[in-house]
Amino acid sequence: MTFLTKLEISKFSSVGGDLSVIDGCNLPFQMKRLYWISNTPEGVIRGLHAHKKLFQFFTVIRGQVEIEISDGKTSEIFILQNDNTISILEPGFWRELRNFSFDCILLVGASEDYSEEDYIRNWDEFLIYRKLKLT
Amino acid sequence: MTFLTKLEISKFSSVGGDLSVIDGCNLPFQMKRLYWISNTPEGVIRGLHAHKKLFQFFTVIRGQVEIEISDGKTSEIFILQNDNTISILEPGFWRELRNFSFDCILLVGASEDYSEEDYIRNWDEFLIYRKLKLT
Repeated sequence: MTFLTKLEISKFSSVGGDLSVIDGCNLPFQMKRLYWISNTPEGVIRGLHAHKKLFQFFTVIRGQVEIEISDGKTSEIFILQNDNTISILEPGFWRELRNFSFDCILLVGASEDYSEEDYIRNWDEFLIYRKLKLT
Repeated sequence: MTFLTKLEISKFSSVGGDLSVIDGCNLPFQMKRLYWISNTPEGVIRGLHAHKKLFQFFTVIRGQVEIEISDGKTSEIFILQNDNTISILEPGFWRELRNFSFDCILLVGASEDYSEEDYIRNWDEFLIYRKLKLT
């Protein structure tokens, strides 16, 4: 079992440049919100939360970033790069993003509009949500 | 009247970097498909088509690009830059994208999945579609 599901996306490269496409065929949810993270200084950690209902995909347009996904018991670290894939993260997982390269552009699509109630921003609350013992 | 409607999007800049967000609040259609254009060599012209039903937004993540929109009678040229806006293009307009800067990353969202039948790829057909005299 892996905490992130990688799906290939289409990339059309020609003398006219590169065109990368995400569509309904390779996306297991309807995109309601889209955001991108850029100009992240060295040493910054982003994420540090989990979602209750929201699905997300992550894809790197430029550079690379490291993402650690945890279910509260174990975690897995992935290096996200510009490799014509999107990485699907289901709800219920804690994520931490770190080691953004200076040129990193990370594009994220979400299945829901913003709702603060969907966030778990505290590690102990996350363990309780996961019905795990506090560590 | 303008051929492109500019809408502001949210950008959150902090010591942790920049986060730009497109969500249902500022998008007049549901995104079904998403693509980005990059590494476009000098002199390349993209677009050169119109859509029958599909709505799109354009937003520049890096660099800049010029877009010319025509209704068959008159046209308007816009410079798209990374300025925290998305530009909405309704169906029924011919578009040509040119003068991509070397670093340009253009993100495009579409209201429909890919369908070749939705494309008008010939200028004369476009004029007929617009019920205009051939020029």
